[in-house]
Amino acid sequence: MRSETGNKRIVVLFSGGLDSTTLLSYYVRGGYEVLPISFYYGQTHSREIRSVSEICRHFGLKDRLVRMDLSVASSALLGDGEIPSRSIEEMNTVPSTFVPARNLIFLSIAASYAYSNGAERIAIGVNSVDYSGYPDCRPGFIASMETAIRRGLDTEITLEAPLQYLPKREIIRKGNGLGTPYELTWSCYRGGENACGRCDSCLLRLQGFMEAGIADPLSYDSYPDFYAEWIKENKK
Amino acid sequence: MRSETGNKRIVVLFSGGLDSTTLLSYYVRGGYEVLPISFYYGQTHSREIRSVSEICRHFGLKDRLVRMDLSVASSALLGDGEIPSRSIEEMNTVPSTFVPARNLIFLSIAASYAYSNGAERIAIGVNSVDYSGYPDCRPGFIASMETAIRRGLDTEITLEAPLQYLPKREIIRKGNGLGTPYELTWSCYRGGENACGRCDSCLLRLQGFMEAGIADPLSYDSYPDFYAEWIKENKK
Repeated sequence: MRSETGNKRIVVLFSGGLDSTTLLSYYVRGGYEVLPISFYYGQTHSREIRSVSEICRHFGLKDRLVRMDLSVASSALLGDGEIPSRSIEEMNTVPSTFVPARNLIFLSIAASYAYSNGAERIAIGVNSVDYSGYPDCRPGFIASMETAIRRGLDTEITLEAPLQYLPKREIIRKGNGLGTPYELTWSCYRGGENACGRCDSCLLRLQGFMEAGIADPLSYDSYPDFYAEWIKENKK
Repeated sequence: MRSETGNKRIVVLFSGGLDSTTLLSYYVRGGYEVLPISFYYGQTHSREIRSVSEICRHFGLKDRLVRMDLSVASSALLGDGEIPSRSIEEMNTVPSTFVPARNLIFLSIAASYAYSNGAERIAIGVNSVDYSGYPDCRPGFIASMETAIRRGLDTEITLEAPLQYLPKREIIRKGNGLGTPYELTWSCYRGGENACGRCDSCLLRLQGFMEAGIADPLSYDSYPDFYAEWIKENKK
């Protein structure tokens, strides 16, 4: 499938969050023909789907939103050994930060999409520095998944994870330099009009911006103390 | 996750077809606690979903049907390089025999299901003898997918494919010996009341039964000549 020179069409797993939006900037600026793919699986922070649309519009990209039933995965969160029969709506009570095999599933669908559209690359915004600790964000998983995709499709598709070894502050600095529209991104696990400024994801994000020496352009309901003090001290 | 002795809970990819029903018999008779998982993705032969229910009832198993949008995959079938935006209903026009990365996607979801329910094994009814030629049915893919699943979930889940090297006739002989209810299975790509007896899948199935020396208990609209003659000669 790969031509002599390789084509520059790439499928990017895109959630509307900070990391994957940085990834989008990176490939768009790098002259790639970017095909974003996004997933709606009843996640609590479905507000990110609005960010997905706005960011795609910003870059002039067509979004491909895949709706799927991931309720098979959620039973672990409930500590329920029985076969679950919940609807997507009911999944709103479950934190979406812990979905077993989520990256396996998303990358498999992305592989199908890439193959079907002649893209020779797939990119995912995982990193293993400031990360959740999930095994499907680690380099060993990414490497084995690339092998499974290549054998399963009998093609030389490449799986790229350029943020893999970067701390959050470096991702933000890199993305800021590329003109990433961070004001349109969404990281908060709550789905309000503004980001909450209290959940794990907001804290990790604000710490990253602070360490990068850049003010987060997103609106928050309230800042955590460490960030409020930093903003005040530096008159950002 | 695996205990000293290993548990006998297994997730089985189950389509209601000949191979995966044989697999179900094999594990049920082997004393496993079987968790079947099935997929509805708008396949033309959605009639198989009825077989799924009937066969699960036969074995006293609870079926887990996952509905999903696989339209990202179908664009290759149409030879259309543009991003598709079709509904599941529109997919009925596309032969479901050619869905890139289908086994990657199904196994990823099965892995999530297995992990969430403490199952240490996943089984898939692929074989690489009388098979479609798809790369995601080959032993090399199955091995690499097992590695990706293990790393992605950080568990020792085993991926089993016991029909891998068996010709269709051997699968049927084996399944028949186990009392597999082949009269309830569905292989036909068309969704009529009876199997058509003309599509590739019906032909492959009837050839397998003939070679096994066993009459297919399923009702057909008509038999292909080779099978009709064999039945007549042998007064089956």
